[in-house]
Amino acid sequence: MRIVLDAMGGDHAPGVVVEGAVQAARQWGTEIILVGQEDVVRAELAKHDTAGLPLSIVHASQVVTMEEHTMAVKQKKDSSMMVGMRLVKEGQADAFASAGNSGAVLAAAIFGLGRIRGIARPALATVYPAAPGPCLLLDMGANADCKPEYLLQFALMGDAYARQLFGMERPRIGIVSNGEEEDKGSMLVRETYPLLKASGLNFIGNVEGKDIGRGLADVVVTDGMTGNVIVKLSEGLLSFLARFLKEQFTSGWRNRLGLALMVPGLIAMLPGLALMLPTLRNLRRRMDWREFGGAPLLGVDGVVVIGHGRSDAVAIKNMVRSAQTAVQQDVVGTIKEALAQRGMDRQGQMEV
Amino acid sequence: MRIVLDAMGGDHAPGVVVEGAVQAARQWGTEIILVGQEDVVRAELAKHDTAGLPLSIVHASQVVTMEEHTMAVKQKKDSSMMVGMRLVKEGQADAFASAGNSGAVLAAAIFGLGRIRGIARPALATVYPAAPGPCLLLDMGANADCKPEYLLQFALMGDAYARQLFGMERPRIGIVSNGEEEDKGSMLVRETYPLLKASGLNFIGNVEGKDIGRGLADVVVTDGMTGNVIVKLSEGLLSFLARFLKEQFTSGWRNRLGLALMVPGLIAMLPGLALMLPTLRNLRRRMDWREFGGAPLLGVDGVVVIGHGRSDAVAIKNMVRSAQTAVQQDVVGTIKEALAQRGMDRQGQMEV
Repeated sequence: MRIVLDAMGGDHAPGVVVEGAVQAARQWGTEIILVGQEDVVRAELAKHDTAGLPLSIVHASQVVTMEEHTMAVKQKKDSSMMVGMRLVKEGQADAFASAGNSGAVLAAAIFGLGRIRGIARPALATVYPAAPGPCLLLDMGANADCKPEYLLQFALMGDAYARQLFGMERPRIGIVSNGEEEDKGSMLVRETYPLLKASGLNFIGNVEGKDIGRGLADVVVTDGMTGNVIVKLSEGLLSFLARFLKEQFTSGWRNRLGLALMVPGLIAMLPGLALMLPTLRNLRRRMDWREFGGAPLLGVDGVVVIGHGRSDAVAIKNMVRSAQTAVQQDVVGTIKEALAQRGMDRQGQMEV
Repeated sequence: MRIVLDAMGGDHAPGVVVEGAVQAARQWGTEIILVGQEDVVRAELAKHDTAGLPLSIVHASQVVTMEEHTMAVKQKKDSSMMVGMRLVKEGQADAFASAGNSGAVLAAAIFGLGRIRGIARPALATVYPAAPGPCLLLDMGANADCKPEYLLQFALMGDAYARQLFGMERPRIGIVSNGEEEDKGSMLVRETYPLLKASGLNFIGNVEGKDIGRGLADVVVTDGMTGNVIVKLSEGLLSFLARFLKEQFTSGWRNRLGLALMVPGLIAMLPGLALMLPTLRNLRRRMDWREFGGAPLLGVDGVVVIGHGRSDAVAIKNMVRSAQTAVQQDVVGTIKEALAQRGMDRQGQMEV
């Protein structure tokens, strides 16, 4: 499997991207094509021991910056994003991954790979860590403004991908709203509701904010703005909570003395804690946003994965893993097949 | 001060509403008028020792159920909601509080009390527990669909109320979006941005989901659907996290043995924990949704507070406290004055 990595994409590119590529190639033996300004990328590669690693460089003279307007990508035909997409389009690579400006990656994917027939707007999907089981949330940010037909298409794509990803027959589909009742929600939600109800999908109705983490639905559909707020708020709340608790328990003499008095007890707890280390490590890993890797862009005709702009090397390495998973699970074929079975071709054509 | 309580509003009305009223009257000496079907309310009151408590009943023959359509309130002129609003309108009470169907309370408030001049849509405001300081979030659910002018008005109301509530000169105003940059967000957000920028308010720009809990803004403005998802997701995440951790640490022999081995250490920590009790109690209180009480409905010409439908007696008691606070802080006068100073009268009239 060959993954194209956008060497110029992300707040800390190209340094951390190259470092992450080296780590991924070493850990999993993944064949990685770094696309970017060759001299710059080569200089970064020289900082690492890359002997025997399946890394190569493809030159792209232009760079789409994080601040640039999404449509800049249209003008920059020789940007790392456009060159990378061409490699996938021409079958020279299996997937494209980038931590760059997500709007620009989206535009490059649409220009470079095209959409799957039947899909008006591609959507970013993420696995949200609900309990008891995780759920697939989409769109997490590709489309700030949506129409009911888009949300229906997100549901169809989410259904197909969740069946593959979670190995389930009929994933439960929910739509984010501000109340459980059918008449609750924005006009968009209320207009999407009957489409989902008539879709033949296993639609369970509205899902409120408090229920997203409860695993009531296996696929949670929403517009890109709400989805983005949900994902970022969830990330932020964990670190907020940790900071808040720390502040609370280290302020005032009572708490400080209390903590000091607890030290012998904490020491006595160490053997027990040692036994729990695997669970603790697993937890730390699950709460680390860098483990998330990247979100697949569903609906484009090729595997595209988008990572956090603030990615460090570990996050980039995991983005490569996300891309590998998306290729292995044949995200494109799965969605194409599901849409073809529904005869969505013409509807999609009309929608665009 | 006299608070009208909607005895028929809420999933567990009238039982818990009457019980909460008794608790509030006993704890704070609040004068409470219970509005509802007199015989039913009287029967509930008889279950408690109400001797000497400043509780009274005003009869209202009709009930707006939790499931009924919002507009049902229009037909039910003798419902507890409409009768209660009249008591406030006529100056017989200072505030109206209900845990009933929030859409219906909103409609009753607009019909019964009218809007403040300059306000097209009232908004539900809530104090969101950010760190370092809390922020005022609105709208948390009154208006699922908004226009840029509404969001501007929410910002003006939020600014006025936050100055009073937090005792600050120029609260920082932010708008929820899916990116920090000015061009990020839904069309609604992008169209509101220039209005806020030109408003003379201390507008700091877009606030992402991950930053809401970080206290970057003192007033966070958003449409009612996004606001509702933010508040409910935040509530849900805490209980999700607690459940998740419990599951993780009580599964498998390693964890169970680890926990058993930690018991002596935990016992040794008790003196330290005892010192920290005030902080622990405070934390438990802050994480308890029942302590939230209710959210004031900003923009109607009278104090109206809306509580959780699932309120129990403790939550109802705290809703009475929220109403008292809103009256003491003169939420209506504060907003009226702020709008009058801006000469918003005509604009508001045009908007409606």
